[in-house]
Amino acid sequence: MYTIGIDLGGTNLRIGLFNEKGEIINEQSRPTEAEKGPEYTITNMAEAINDLKTQYNIKAVGIGSPGPLFPNTGIIIEPPNLPGWVNVPIVDLLEEKIDLPVKLENDANAAALAEATLGAGKGASSVFFVTVSTGIGGGYVLGGQLVSGAQGNCGEIGNMIVNPSPDAYHGPGLNKGALEGLASGTAIGRIGKERLNIPNGAQGVFQLAEQGNQQAQEIVDEAINYLAIGLANIVHTVNPEVIVIGGGVMKSKDLILKPLIEKTREYVYPSLKESLVIKPAVLDQKAGLVGAGLLPQR
Amino acid sequence: MYTIGIDLGGTNLRIGLFNEKGEIINEQSRPTEAEKGPEYTITNMAEAINDLKTQYNIKAVGIGSPGPLFPNTGIIIEPPNLPGWVNVPIVDLLEEKIDLPVKLENDANAAALAEATLGAGKGASSVFFVTVSTGIGGGYVLGGQLVSGAQGNCGEIGNMIVNPSPDAYHGPGLNKGALEGLASGTAIGRIGKERLNIPNGAQGVFQLAEQGNQQAQEIVDEAINYLAIGLANIVHTVNPEVIVIGGGVMKSKDLILKPLIEKTREYVYPSLKESLVIKPAVLDQKAGLVGAGLLPQR
Repeated sequence: MYTIGIDLGGTNLRIGLFNEKGEIINEQSRPTEAEKGPEYTITNMAEAINDLKTQYNIKAVGIGSPGPLFPNTGIIIEPPNLPGWVNVPIVDLLEEKIDLPVKLENDANAAALAEATLGAGKGASSVFFVTVSTGIGGGYVLGGQLVSGAQGNCGEIGNMIVNPSPDAYHGPGLNKGALEGLASGTAIGRIGKERLNIPNGAQGVFQLAEQGNQQAQEIVDEAINYLAIGLANIVHTVNPEVIVIGGGVMKSKDLILKPLIEKTREYVYPSLKESLVIKPAVLDQKAGLVGAGLLPQR
Repeated sequence: MYTIGIDLGGTNLRIGLFNEKGEIINEQSRPTEAEKGPEYTITNMAEAINDLKTQYNIKAVGIGSPGPLFPNTGIIIEPPNLPGWVNVPIVDLLEEKIDLPVKLENDANAAALAEATLGAGKGASSVFFVTVSTGIGGGYVLGGQLVSGAQGNCGEIGNMIVNPSPDAYHGPGLNKGALEGLASGTAIGRIGKERLNIPNGAQGVFQLAEQGNQQAQEIVDEAINYLAIGLANIVHTVNPEVIVIGGGVMKSKDLILKPLIEKTREYVYPSLKESLVIKPAVLDQKAGLVGAGLLPQR
């Protein structure tokens, strides 16, 4: 028995065939071409799946998609990464074309499931996954089960308010003072441009900081401080055994990860300092696809 | 088969006998006399339990205690409410005296379990309980099961940072800018004293606000704003079906609860505004005791 996982990205549509251990047997990628509309992309998905169906005994399909979406009703609401996709009942539309059960989840939740069960959180009783890239997202896996949340919004920590000041940055679609607006790769790049006229985003800020530029280092430190507040707030809300942190920003591990762990430790209860475990993600780009493949098995 | 629940408070020790439905069959209360040391209080507990054991077939005992504590090892660490109690292995000490299995939990977690299964959250798939009184605590119940957290610190939202400003209030044992230091009854009372020289705590601030005093109302509004940030942060972290809110401060329901719900709604994703459910606790003073009685059944 096999499952199919689909990582529906703004740019690429990745389709994986998984065995029961969650191993990828077959993987293909094609452009999403989201601008051609959901019907086009979903027909593409169905073609690939129906092709695999002729060769393998496939049980079900999981889709990891950018949010917001409703996993319970299988509807993609209106993701910034899929322009023009508004209230798309993707589960119904795809099930009709492939005659297999389909499960939909937020891409960060899918990645969380993968990291928790097969990645950096393997073996832990509870894992909170946090991804810091252009945006900030996450997911929570308890006892090996993905906690989706009543409306599928578990792990939407990018919208966590970490600065209530009236002057705090107010990003589109986010709370004023939300974590994502202050500490994502996009935020670091924006602040670098504002303060130091750095043209090439977060990467440029990191490079300057690594070269010893004090003002660039300050931008990094501020982002780390907000991330540490976010992680400590997660700890005091659900106290996971392991926090797994991934995403593009975490590629600058020496610059970010070590100070982030130290700072988070300052912000947790004294009795939790020793037991705090924050690990870098290991599945990286694969996490979303692997998690999508695991979805139907949960 | 019966269970015994113990609500170990700083002032009173309450002991309840529960049937399998979680109904209280017998209830007794005596002073904790914590200052006489844990051995004295635990001997008192054991006497009451052994007395009930002669009349009823008792399966197990649950204790709800002020934290910090380790539920897994059954150790009370050093609660401000139980002065002199340092690293007390209460589960081992009590089990020895009564020859029954004993389960220990944070009192807010016990109350959460009660409200989620028999109180305001009854029937919901996931409930986050928040209590606002002298301190701020909480607990998370998912699928009818209490989520204790890896070190038993799930629901410790009093220490959630909601103001990162260097000028934010820094209460003892808490993070600077922690929710409890800004929005608990103690915090409201402290601010009332500082700004308006109100002598009688949060109650005095509420009274003045209800009489139309603008500055007192501002103090209340600020606390509500921080509470709303805390609740919205919970929503974006675990997206519970229902938030149940209790504690002494919530007694001023008209003054607090309605504006709190409105404010929280402002801070959640647009797709969550409609589905946000915040309910007042119904078990009140009984929640801790009832939850302690439910602990061994979970």
